[in-house]
Amino acid sequence: MTLTLDHARTIIEIARAKGREMSLKPLSVVVLDAGGHVLAFEREDGASPGRFAIAQGKAYGAVMLGMAGTAQMERAEQQAYFMAAVNGAFGGQVVPVPGGVLVRDGSGAVVGAVGVTGDTSEKDAMAAQAGISAAGLTAEI
Amino acid sequence: MTLTLDHARTIIEIARAKGREMSLKPLSVVVLDAGGHVLAFEREDGASPGRFAIAQGKAYGAVMLGMAGTAQMERAEQQAYFMAAVNGAFGGQVVPVPGGVLVRDGSGAVVGAVGVTGDTSEKDAMAAQAGISAAGLTAEI
Amino acid sequence: MTLTLDHARTIIEIARAKGREMSLKPLSVVVLDAGGHVLAFEREDGASPGRFAIAQGKAYGAVMLGMAGTAQMERAEQQAYFMAAVNGAFGGQVVPVPGGVLVRDGSGAVVGAVGVTGDTSEKDAMAAQAGISAAGLTAEI
Amino acid sequence: MTLTLDHARTIIEIARAKGREMSLKPLSVVVLDAGGHVLAFEREDGASPGRFAIAQGKAYGAVMLGMAGTAQMERAEQQAYFMAAVNGAFGGQVVPVPGGVLVRDGSGAVVGAVGVTGDTSEKDAMAAQAGISAAGLTAEI
Repeated sequence: MTLTLDHARTIIEIARAKGREMSLKPLSVVVLDAGGHVLAFEREDGASPGRFAIAQGKAYGAVMLGMAGTAQMERAEQQAYFMAAVNGAFGGQVVPVPGGVLVRDGSGAVVGAVGVTGDTSEKDAMAAQAGISAAGLTAEI
Repeated sequence: MTLTLDHARTIIEIARAKGREMSLKPLSVVVLDAGGHVLAFEREDGASPGRFAIAQGKAYGAVMLGMAGTAQMERAEQQAYFMAAVNGAFGGQVVPVPGGVLVRDGSGAVVGAVGVTGDTSEKDAMAAQAGISAAGLTAEI
Repeated sequence: MTLTLDHARTIIEIARAKGREMSLKPLSVVVLDAGGHVLAFEREDGASPGRFAIAQGKAYGAVMLGMAGTAQMERAEQQAYFMAAVNGAFGGQVVPVPGGVLVRDGSGAVVGAVGVTGDTSEKDAMAAQAGISAAGLTAEI
Repeated sequence: MTLTLDHARTIIEIARAKGREMSLKPLSVVVLDAGGHVLAFEREDGASPGRFAIAQGKAYGAVMLGMAGTAQMERAEQQAYFMAAVNGAFGGQVVPVPGGVLVRDGSGAVVGAVGVTGDTSEKDAMAAQAGISAAGLTAEI
């Protein structure tokens, strides 16, 4: 299946609602398709201006490597030079921490990724997960 | 004044509705703040994957130069090497055609820009204009 | 509120005066607006030629992330690969050490950032702070 | 001789005063040293946020090529691909139009360049020239 704009809008809406429910700082949420290209993005009022690049970097690394943020962070902690090299190969667009969340369909195929930034990386990932579940898809954080 | 996420969501919703009303091809719409940073973006189903960069380039040039897409296009037609050089100075992020629309508040100050891409540049600009007006702001196309 | 050129000139003048008072090495001082764009810059005689990029990198990271230099340095010390990745996402323009100082208005909103370079990072930050206070604004170092 | 910060401050002050005297739009003025590195910059209130890059591009091309903006523009009109190639070689930092003004000392040596942007290229150059003369130096527009 292919992620639609309706999926993306639901993911963003529910991720933001989760953030408010958890009293998180202002969130920025991006949804990328299976090719790593932006489908939709929203930055909440009060977030710092550079949040698009951070959200996109979290999601881009996830989808391009097929590896969610938590796994990327573990790899970065074990072998920092490897993730640095990967980042070079992708033009500096990889931010290897939680909050970059893979989106899978019912068959287990990666159909996109979500990037959330604003609060701690772990809480960012929880907000992403809430949005992905609400869209009837499976999150790998 | 500062452009809020609510402004940006209204602009995107109404620009997209205008596109459907005019039977335009699938649109992609970005809203940037007064510093050229992304507030919100949506890409309609059926649009090609690279539309974020085009929408962003139209809006980014407008807000960074304080010159809307139509004026940029005229300058590019008169002095192509100048707009090419400007594009270099901004890291290749300037797309100097209509559809990059300045957003002004009641006092005339530039508070952001909208970039629409998908149909002809002129029709893209009409969709942007509809969204900006619906948000109670003034468009310079 | 919006940072004006008069604010920026005061910040630079007083930061430089503080540097002379403290017998610091020649300073370079940049003031960025809330979107990370340069308002004003001065490099004192005797400073090395590359100081604009360092000053700008300190201030740019602060305003784009909404995180002052001291907090960025702590994050870099705890999780070096994260700040390296963030730097990639911002095109290599982030220098995560003290001397990148957030500027807040009376309501607490970030209205820009100051970057000072030339002496130790901590003394650079003190000079920035003096300038920001003299302009009637609040520094977060 | 070497351009000092005092020279740069005088150039900016008088270029801006000339702009007000001629009722020009808000100006942005940069002064580069003989190595093409920024000495000082100011952007007047009301100028669009991207003006540093344009001012810098005008001055950088002048000093790096030893050719003022007017001569660069003539070359661009005769041989657009040449100036495009030059721009590529300099990382996109050359804006080949008037307002990029060479600064020469009494012996005729190039000691830096001034970049002014905001009004028409020709008027930008006049403002730069006024500032350079006021600093006791010779302008080549």
